Amino acid sequence: MESRRILGIDPGLNITGYAVVEARNRRIQIIEAGVVRGKTRGSLPARVREIYDGVRDVIETLKPHAMAIEQLYSHYERPKTAIIMGHARGVLCLAAEQAGLPIHHYSATQIKKLLTGSGRAPKNQIQLSVQRELGLAEIPDPPDVADALAVALCHYYLESTPTQVA
Amino acid sequence: MESRRILGIDPGLNITGYAVVEARNRRIQIIEAGVVRGKTRGSLPARVREIYDGVRDVIETLKPHAMAIEQLYSHYERPKTAIIMGHARGVLCLAAEQAGLPIHHYSATQIKKLLTGSGRAPKNQIQLSVQRELGLAEIPDPPDVADALAVALCHYYLESTPTQVA
Repeated sequence: MESRRILGIDPGLNITGYAVVEARNRRIQIIEAGVVRGKTRGSLPARVREIYDGVRDVIETLKPHAMAIEQLYSHYERPKTAIIMGHARGVLCLAAEQAGLPIHHYSATQIKKLLTGSGRAPKNQIQLSVQRELGLAEIPDPPDVADALAVALCHYYLESTPTQVA
Repeated sequence: MESRRILGIDPGLNITGYAVVEARNRRIQIIEAGVVRGKTRGSLPARVREIYDGVRDVIETLKPHAMAIEQLYSHYERPKTAIIMGHARGVLCLAAEQAGLPIHHYSATQIKKLLTGSGRAPKNQIQLSVQRELGLAEIPDPPDVADALAVALCHYYLESTPTQVA
């Protein structure tokens, strides 16, 4: 099995978590994980640009083969947050599209279910799953990094599961 | 009074209306108005890229001095539309920011009130005001163009109104 690099993204206008994981021979390891943090608090356009520049840089440097990101419609209960997250997602999708990366969307429920077995697992349980799966000494911090790793792992599980046994 | 070019934008993922108007000596005229239409229906990333490329091209070609766009939080009653519009707005703000354009946000109510005197004016009345103000033979079509002209005019009125009489 050849190696595949997956870029997981937890989009946000203040902090966007990212994680590039590499899958090789049924093992998975972190290549790099971190956050793109808006230096500018005030202006929405300045912040979307920081997110765009930051993620473009990650894509150019670490050359992932695919991007995995949380589904569009998960945040109805907080419309302001959802609309602002839409701005961040827009420039993230643009960066991936310009680099020719396929983009995979997963719902929060799907990510939780794949990582813990329950679509309603609490945040902490997801973080523990991420830690265990990747053999990390500690829970990844800040939570945005753990969330980015979670969506990358979600894509890894679904990609590596054969849909048919020949 | 030196000339000022204003880029008005009516963002949408299927059709984004744009209008570049030029204000000179208390008169205003259309330089160009039209739509950026997504050729690709299926993929969200492909469509944000088309919007981004289209508006970048308008900015590079027509060199506006400012961008005016409808306010962020006007569409609570339709959360899906609002989130998708967030994606479009994200890449539009990015294009303007990269070109160094200041971005001005106006609420739907503010645009209606400035153009017709009533914040609750029906769509048709806005279109008639745009037509009259710009001395057009017909109502601009499609409506996305009229909306882009409306937000550009809104910015023009507010910019050219002296806040103090010396």
